[in-house]
Amino acid sequence: MTETMKRIALARRPVGAPSNEDFRLEEAPIPTPGDGEVLVRVHYMSLDPYMRGRMDDAKSYATPVPLGGTMEGGAVGEVIASNDPGFQPGDFAFGMFGWATHGVQPAKMIRKLEPSHGPITAALGVLGMPGFTGWYGLTQFGQPKAGETVVVAAATGPVGSMVGQIAKARGCHVVGVAGGADKCAMARETFGFDICLNHHDYADAAAMRAALAEACPKGVDIYFENVAGKVLEGVMPLMNVGGRIPVCGMISWYNAGALGANAGGEKDNLPKLWRTILVNRLHVHGFIISDHWADYPRFLAEVGPMVAAGQVKFVEDIAEGLENAPQAFMGLLVGRNKGKQIVKVI
Amino acid sequence: MTETMKRIALARRPVGAPSNEDFRLEEAPIPTPGDGEVLVRVHYMSLDPYMRGRMDDAKSYATPVPLGGTMEGGAVGEVIASNDPGFQPGDFAFGMFGWATHGVQPAKMIRKLEPSHGPITAALGVLGMPGFTGWYGLTQFGQPKAGETVVVAAATGPVGSMVGQIAKARGCHVVGVAGGADKCAMARETFGFDICLNHHDYADAAAMRAALAEACPKGVDIYFENVAGKVLEGVMPLMNVGGRIPVCGMISWYNAGALGANAGGEKDNLPKLWRTILVNRLHVHGFIISDHWADYPRFLAEVGPMVAAGQVKFVEDIAEGLENAPQAFMGLLVGRNKGKQIVKVI
Repeated sequence: MTETMKRIALARRPVGAPSNEDFRLEEAPIPTPGDGEVLVRVHYMSLDPYMRGRMDDAKSYATPVPLGGTMEGGAVGEVIASNDPGFQPGDFAFGMFGWATHGVQPAKMIRKLEPSHGPITAALGVLGMPGFTGWYGLTQFGQPKAGETVVVAAATGPVGSMVGQIAKARGCHVVGVAGGADKCAMARETFGFDICLNHHDYADAAAMRAALAEACPKGVDIYFENVAGKVLEGVMPLMNVGGRIPVCGMISWYNAGALGANAGGEKDNLPKLWRTILVNRLHVHGFIISDHWADYPRFLAEVGPMVAAGQVKFVEDIAEGLENAPQAFMGLLVGRNKGKQIVKVI
Repeated sequence: MTETMKRIALARRPVGAPSNEDFRLEEAPIPTPGDGEVLVRVHYMSLDPYMRGRMDDAKSYATPVPLGGTMEGGAVGEVIASNDPGFQPGDFAFGMFGWATHGVQPAKMIRKLEPSHGPITAALGVLGMPGFTGWYGLTQFGQPKAGETVVVAAATGPVGSMVGQIAKARGCHVVGVAGGADKCAMARETFGFDICLNHHDYADAAAMRAALAEACPKGVDIYFENVAGKVLEGVMPLMNVGGRIPVCGMISWYNAGALGANAGGEKDNLPKLWRTILVNRLHVHGFIISDHWADYPRFLAEVGPMVAAGQVKFVEDIAEGLENAPQAFMGLLVGRNKGKQIVKVI
């Protein structure tokens, strides 16, 4: 009897917010690793906002998931078979195994986990792609200086909480935005944000702007962009001369379609934004973290010890069971998670 | 009998496009220079798009012209009285003398003109603020490399023509946009653009985009932004990964009001632009050239000899008489000038 694995396939391309019908739980034979390949039994998989983009077939920085293909994503698990001398059964590794109980990858495409880096789930969040995204964007493109003001939304997520904690460690005034009073309390109490605003309290960009203006009496030097929408429109007029905007995401617009159709927003918001970039001499840098893996060791060297020492905190929100991944992912896109969204697969 | 001068005052703040009633020609006594000050008889004054912003009282990077105040601007003329040892009557100097026949400035705020730098009008255009703007933005923020594609609008203006010529000198494929077949011919024949598109031929951003796509078969690496509007919306989807956008102006929106109200444009153009910045990892840099005068000697050292040798060309459009400055300025804002707009005052 062939052993089988489970996987979640893309059944349909969503229009707007994904729904259950867009995903399909399937069984398949466990693949056999070829030369130089490794078979991993997944313990935990990551859910991240970028996956929404992979469900569309619009041109983007990465190839879309094909219809019927396994949903993409990072995961950690135990090596159960290896045709590469660098990996032995029993090793734990991170790789792009997708939404599945098992995965095969070339050895050079996966990374062995070091026990000194904390629980294996850390490789999906605080010390993985999201944490690295926050650290890299803030330090490389944000260039924070002591006394400056930093604004970041999704403040309790793995990107925002890294941005906030590194900015605090560098002496900045740090203002977060999050969806809910409980998340705002977490941002302040767990992650050390000076102020956190609950965006549900502000109906539109104008209201968001007034609250941000009060929270940022010296204006905003760095706006770390991961949500867009009313937070972007609210913060732009508050940017100081010479301000920096690293752009790593815009989750509030993802469900609005690949080109942000029906995203709404204020009238003539493009001319307003463009004028602010000119008048306040802003520096806006789009970045995709996969371009920058060469800097990952530098990140681990700086932030790994901070995590180990408890100076950088992390919070994980763990859903149980591969079959619940679609529901957890839909929740992530509307902010139902508290902290890094992970799915326990085994 | 006191000698009098003429000046043009801001009579009213325009709503939308300026009209004659927004300006007032006045006589006033010729001012007397104080300690360390210099009195200049203006020969030529500059007209530049940024002056439209000074007519509004919206917060910007510079103080608005007060109602009743002299319209601001750079000018060149002859020193007729000096209380500073650095200037003698008969010297020619550049300074912010405004729209006026005479002006007094502190000696440290004006610059003596070197005869080796060509005609004195060059200090207003090709070797003045506009030329420096094009050179600085292109080289500092655009970072052109041989073989890359550069797009710039207002291609026959003093900024655009500098961008195009420096980009050509560095081995780029250079595509201009200008308003009229005659200007496009000038861009190609005088300034050496590879291609120039007449934006009157394209009704909207989609048509502009199709033409730009054909003119830029390898995509666009640098979009030098000085006009915004449909050129911006047309070029954004064509930007290559890692592209750069220096932003020094947005003339097509200036008459639309300080916040670009009623600027129109495509539906949901802000989400589209923001998504392109992310997906294509663009670097957008707003800049105001007055922040960068420390680099002006470097510009003069590089471009001065190129102008003297005829490698960098310039075209001037000279209106006669201070009283015609408002009309020439209104024409500039809608692109009626061909080349650098100057007013001969004496």
